[in-house]
Order: sequence, then structure tokens, then C-alpha cells
Amino acid sequence: MSNKTVLTGITTTGIPHLGNYAGAIRPAIESSQTTEARSFFFLADYHAIIKCHEPARIRESALAIAATWLAGGLDPNKVVFYRQSDVPEIMELTWALTCVTAKGLMNRAHAYKGVVQENVEANAVDPDKGITMGLFSYPILMAADILMFKATHVPVGKDQIQHIEMARDIAQRFNHIFGETFVLPEAVVDDAGMILKGLDGRKMSKSYNNTIPLFEDEKKFRKLINKIVTNSLEPGEPKDPDTCTLFGIYSAFASPSDIVSMRKQYQEGIAWGEAKKQVFEHLNELLKDKRDAYNQLIQDPAEIDRTLRLGADKARQEAATLLSQVRRAVGIAPLAG
Amino acid sequence: MSNKTVLTGITTTGIPHLGNYAGAIRPAIESSQTTEARSFFFLADYHAIIKCHEPARIRESALAIAATWLAGGLDPNKVVFYRQSDVPEIMELTWALTCVTAKGLMNRAHAYKGVVQENVEANAVDPDKGITMGLFSYPILMAADILMFKATHVPVGKDQIQHIEMARDIAQRFNHIFGETFVLPEAVVDDAGMILKGLDGRKMSKSYNNTIPLFEDEKKFRKLINKIVTNSLEPGEPKDPDTCTLFGIYSAFASPSDIVSMRKQYQEGIAWGEAKKQVFEHLNELLKDKRDAYNQLIQDPAEIDRTLRLGADKARQEAATLLSQVRRAVGIAPLAG
Repeated sequence: MSNKTVLTGITTTGIPHLGNYAGAIRPAIESSQTTEARSFFFLADYHAIIKCHEPARIRESALAIAATWLAGGLDPNKVVFYRQSDVPEIMELTWALTCVTAKGLMNRAHAYKGVVQENVEANAVDPDKGITMGLFSYPILMAADILMFKATHVPVGKDQIQHIEMARDIAQRFNHIFGETFVLPEAVVDDAGMILKGLDGRKMSKSYNNTIPLFEDEKKFRKLINKIVTNSLEPGEPKDPDTCTLFGIYSAFASPSDIVSMRKQYQEGIAWGEAKKQVFEHLNELLKDKRDAYNQLIQDPAEIDRTLRLGADKARQEAATLLSQVRRAVGIAPLAG
Repeated sequence: MSNKTVLTGITTTGIPHLGNYAGAIRPAIESSQTTEARSFFFLADYHAIIKCHEPARIRESALAIAATWLAGGLDPNKVVFYRQSDVPEIMELTWALTCVTAKGLMNRAHAYKGVVQENVEANAVDPDKGITMGLFSYPILMAADILMFKATHVPVGKDQIQHIEMARDIAQRFNHIFGETFVLPEAVVDDAGMILKGLDGRKMSKSYNNTIPLFEDEKKFRKLINKIVTNSLEPGEPKDPDTCTLFGIYSAFASPSDIVSMRKQYQEGIAWGEAKKQVFEHLNELLKDKRDAYNQLIQDPAEIDRTLRLGADKARQEAATLLSQVRRAVGIAPLAG
């Protein structure tokens, strides 16, 4: 086993859609199956409560996300798969890091500055309007997630690179004050990361309300594929695959040779109805076993709880070791030494 | 048992001195012995690491403070006496509260604003210079300490009133979003709170380096009493007790009739040497049994660990109940419901 440790967190505020699957879930699962590295996957529910104050949604999302990863082929015996809130050591580490994190560092976080900017532009009396301390300090929680398991590689989108840099900053500061304790993580940015467009042609995203849920039931799934916006070209007229949302979605799930032949059909003027039918049939065929597995998994949430708890047990063993080192370093240890 | 719950935390960064004892420790112990209320006393070591990055000092202080309270007569069977860091539930609650706390609330904290003001006056490039996230967000940790045990009454100095108000704010906000969960605490400010002056005549305080440790050994204790600054009035000249540091210290430890007779001696021109001798003898007599107990206690830190852990067990039972309610409220609960 190499020293490489990969850590991936998924915030539990939504239901996985085709875009999440093609862009993040599938590649992460595939990489966990082939890598020599240790892999940590966790449901980031303590991140979820920063922005989402709807408890039912958070629980529904946690169940859906856990079931999606398992149905997608994540092997909980090969990776450490856990729920963040089942590892309370992370909260203690968060506080220890909070005490060495400069407020100035948080002031410079893009996510925070973005909201301040919006407030300023809207002439808000208070530039911090609507900003909670959770939003302001969540890079520290993220640092704790990462540093706790000595993660060396953290796959992130471009917007998250700064948070990995902050985790490094915080780790270095702690190491400097209290002695070598933390491993510095690196961001792994997949530039080729697949981004699917949604029903309306914009990036598929919960916030645009244009998503196609990954494990939607077959009938609704067909309906949603049919709702993907195309243009008004008639059957027989050649169509441009490269600007087409439908083609993009198909490509994310098709083999190179299938893609070539679909491209040819576009040039030959395939009717939109026919194209949608083919895309639906292809995706449905590809996803239906996993969808069945998913549907079975969510019928038994207690079993998923057990799986996650077993993962948390593994995670907590490592967390306890590191936390005890951290506590000793800062002066919080049994009085008897 | 009444519904009144009193909670007192002591930051573990120093060694208790006469001023701490007369102003806070003694009245708190006395009140815990006579009250019908439930009393919680804790060593605030997670607060200590905000400002103090010297692990040895924090541990030494935790030992000294625990031993002082026990030697002073705190009964760990009557009160809940624990170390904050032995109750990790407090950290989880801190995060849950962090997610509902407006950043604007923290911006208005006097302690934070004070440092910013100093930076501005010193023309610092960054007004947040030297400010950690620990300093910025510690009112949230304090709120968690208080709300965790449904404390109704929190004895504080005037400078801490705002923090109790913030704890109320945060509790109300959480209750508003997620339903009734927390009890709103009240600050109890003892206006008559005794403030002793130190060796140099300024308020006795670690930061002025003018303290007389409470359980200093007898020889050093005499030496320190002799070092208390007085004026140059000769023996036989009448002296003013009311502006006299020595008299103030004596008064904090003497009976009303003893105070009257010392006052008379001042008026009659008692020599400073004689006055100091009498003060030393009186205080030494009063403190020596407790000092012996203290010295015995600190010889056996493992026993203090046990006492604190028993207290933490009691605290954690209550903490676990409340935390589970909080987790459920925000949506972090077993998936099986």
C-alpha cells in the first residue's frame, strides 16, 4: 500500500443527478477500484448544515448519496466510507485548528468574499448580511476533514483549490507552533472533468433546477430525457452534435464507437424524437441494474447505517490516534501525563 | 432540586492567586455549598488554547486550578466538576451553533473590536492582525458550554455580559429555526465582586505580573506580602486604610471585627512592617490547611484525572441527551430514523 491517501467528501444537500455521476461519482469510484492509494469517502453532513436548514432534506440526501455510491460500485471493504458526523473527533480537531487559523486567512476566502461583494452591490447596510459563521469558517472544517486522515490528494473542482491551500496554510502553522503533526495535502484538479448540461442547456445543477436525477424511475427518466431542450431543426436536416445538450449527455455514457455513430446520425439529420429515444434507451440500459440496486438499498436504511458505522469505526481508529497527538501538542492531555 | 442551574468555567492559563480566590473561587464554592441549584464547574481548556500556545503552561494550570477548587472545598459529589475537553459533545454543539450564528454578531464582540481598535491605532496594514479565528469565534464555544447544560445562571464579570447576551441570541436563533431546544441563560453579575489589588497597587492580575499565588509556600508567601507597595509614612503616623493595598487584601480575608480592629491600628499609626506581619500571619493561618490539601492533591494528578473523569461522565450523560436532540433537529440522525 502506497503512502498516497485520497479523500473525497460529498455534501449531503441534494439527490445525485446525471451530471454528478459522470463528473464526480463515476470517476471517483473507478479510481478507488484501481488505485493502490488508500481512499476515504465521506458524507459531509456537518458541511450540509451550513447552508441547509431543512433537516428532512439533509437526511433524504444522505440516504440517497450513500445508496448511490454503493449502487455505483464503491466497495466499503476496500475504501473507508463514513459519515462525517459519525466521527466526532473531526469537531475537536476543527476547534484546535480554529485556534491557530488567522482570521485574515478566512477574510480572503473567495466564497465569503463573493457574498460580501453581492451585499455591497445590493447596497446592503451590513456587508456581512446573511453570512453565518458556518459559511465564514467552513474552510477550517474542511481542513480538519483532510488533515485528520493525512490525506495527500484531494480531488476538487477549481473553485475549491483555495480551500486546499488554506488547509495547507493551517497545517503548516500548527506544525510550526507545536511540532510536526500534519501532512500537507495537495489539490488534484481534473481539468478534463466532464460537465454535463441540464434540461435547459445550462450546466446541470441543483441551483438551476434543470437536473435529471441519476436513479429516477424509468418512466420519469424517459420523460425528462424528452424534455431536454433541442432546437427546431426538422427531421432530415443535419444537426450539430457539438453544441447539443442531448449529445453531450449521450457522450458521457457511450463508448467511443457509439459516439462516432451517433455523430453520424446527427449529420444525417436524425429526428429529435428518435435521438431522444436512442439516448434514453442507451442510458436506461446502462443504469438500470444500478438503479435496481439503488432502489433496494434505500429500502433498508438501517443496513446503510451499519455500513457507514463500520466505516466510521475504521475512520475513528485513525482519528483517535491523530487527535490524541494533537491534544498532547496543545496541552490538553491527562494531568498525570 | 430547583430548575436553577449555575455554570462556571475557569480558563486554564494561570495559577490561582489571592485575587482569583477572593473574587471568584471562594464565593462560587460557598454558593455551591449552600444553593439548591445544580452547579456545573469546568476547566475551560479548549478556551485556554485560544490565547495560550504553551502546552506545558496549560497542563500546569489545569492541575493547579483543579487542585485549588478541590482544596478550597468544592465537593465533586455535589456539583458536576469536569474538564471541558473531556466532553467532546461540546465541540459538536459548537459547530451546530456556528451554523446559525450570524457573522455580524461576532463582528460586534467587544473583545474582538478591542483588538481591531488597537491595530487601527497602531496603523497596522490589516486591522485583523494577530487575531485568530479562535479569538473571533469563542463566544460560540462559550454559548455551547452554557447551552449544553441548560444553564440558567452564569456568574460573570461585567466584561462578559455581552457573551451571555450572545449565547441567548444564538439559542433563540436556533430555537426559531429548529424548534425549542435551548434554555436561555442569564448573566449574574456580582457588582459587589471583590477586586484585590496586587503587589504594585494595580488590580491583581496575571497580565500585570503583580499577583500573590494563593498556595505559595509559606516562606515565599511571607516574602510577597512584604513586597506589597505601601507608602513612606513612618511608624506612629496615622495611615489611610481605604487607599491601602495591604488593608484591602487583609479585608478580603478577615472577619468584620478583625477589619474594625485593623482599621483602628492604621489610625493609630501601625508600622508597615508590623501591619504586613499581621496580614501574613492572618492569611497564612487561614490558608495553611487548604494549602496542605492543595500540595497533597497536586502530588497525585492521576487521582484528579479520575475525579474530573467522573465529573465528565455525569456531564456527558446530559450532553449526549441534548446533543442527540440537536442532531435530530438539524437533520443529522441515523438514516433509519
